[in-house]
Amino acid sequence: MTTPITRTRLTPEQRRSQLLDLGVRLLATRSLDELSIDLLAEEAGISRGLLYHYFGNKHAFHEAVVRRAADDLIEQTAPPSDDEPMVRLVSSLAAYVDYVVANHEGYLSLVKAAAGGNETLREIYEEARSALNGRIFREDAQGEIIPDTPVTRLVVRGWSAMIEELVLSWIADPGGLSREQLLEILAASLPAIVETVPEQ
Amino acid sequence: MTTPITRTRLTPEQRRSQLLDLGVRLLATRSLDELSIDLLAEEAGISRGLLYHYFGNKHAFHEAVVRRAADDLIEQTAPPSDDEPMVRLVSSLAAYVDYVVANHEGYLSLVKAAAGGNETLREIYEEARSALNGRIFREDAQGEIIPDTPVTRLVVRGWSAMIEELVLSWIADPGGLSREQLLEILAASLPAIVETVPEQ
Repeated sequence: MTTPITRTRLTPEQRRSQLLDLGVRLLATRSLDELSIDLLAEEAGISRGLLYHYFGNKHAFHEAVVRRAADDLIEQTAPPSDDEPMVRLVSSLAAYVDYVVANHEGYLSLVKAAAGGNETLREIYEEARSALNGRIFREDAQGEIIPDTPVTRLVVRGWSAMIEELVLSWIADPGGLSREQLLEILAASLPAIVETVPEQ
Repeated sequence: MTTPITRTRLTPEQRRSQLLDLGVRLLATRSLDELSIDLLAEEAGISRGLLYHYFGNKHAFHEAVVRRAADDLIEQTAPPSDDEPMVRLVSSLAAYVDYVVANHEGYLSLVKAAAGGNETLREIYEEARSALNGRIFREDAQGEIIPDTPVTRLVVRGWSAMIEELVLSWIADPGGLSREQLLEILAASLPAIVETVPEQ
């Protein structure tokens, strides 16, 4: 028996990946609680049984979708490879703001789930945050914006909590602040806070 | 029949208040999940039945304890009435750091419960945060550190998320930073971030 070659056949891995992309798109405008296997089955036009085959259960499905969303966030916020460290920082922050705006519901529900004690989601969230925070130091290897010390690592953790709160609060109520002005605060606040670190 | 007057008799309100104080002390070194009516009964040396009489159920008990803890936080971080705005800010921040250190477990579990979607606890947490953030502007009525605008209100929300993350991360791993150095960063970062707000 020969396999028909009139259309490309997806491997199970490719099919699963396609379903995850759909899950991430659905999560953009929904909380995790609202993202069900039923909904994905309906949107993908396949049976619930097949989805259970791919993902096992609801928790594993959510975990896989959130992991993919976190990977997307890291990928989309990758700065350009040339330019000055500060230009790269602004570019990365702009992509972060746009990501949170475009995926607001899902992002908010991930923050809540991670903070609220779901261990697996907390781990994925922390991994993504570590990746983003670590990138600050990697992209600024000469320490032009921020030298790499245990204290500045701590400061960047605080700064990134501020960034997240500012972006989420700005989406809820911009208070007259444009996207460009928000970006100016996000970027300029990092060196400004680093300046406050006392000599040790 | 006459009431013995050899010792002061507490009113039910005073008794309830005393039990709440005990609850707050127990919560300091425990998460909310670990704070049970059973534990309180044991520590107070009274029956579970009497505690249910005072608090109704476990959720109402947790709510009452957390509300009391939030009131304590607001009271203990009240700055001195004289001195410069910046001195008052440092004094208030020092009390905040000491409060979080002394009540670490309970504070952390409140942050998690509030972020994780427990609506009542989230409300209490948000009220306390609003009170602390609003105080920044009240204590600096002349706008010496920070003028009062919708954008600076947003900035203070972000800064206070940073403060919380920095203090919790510092407790977990000080990274060689002393309490005084931490305080210097917390206090100096507010005007430093305000400086980054663009003209509108």
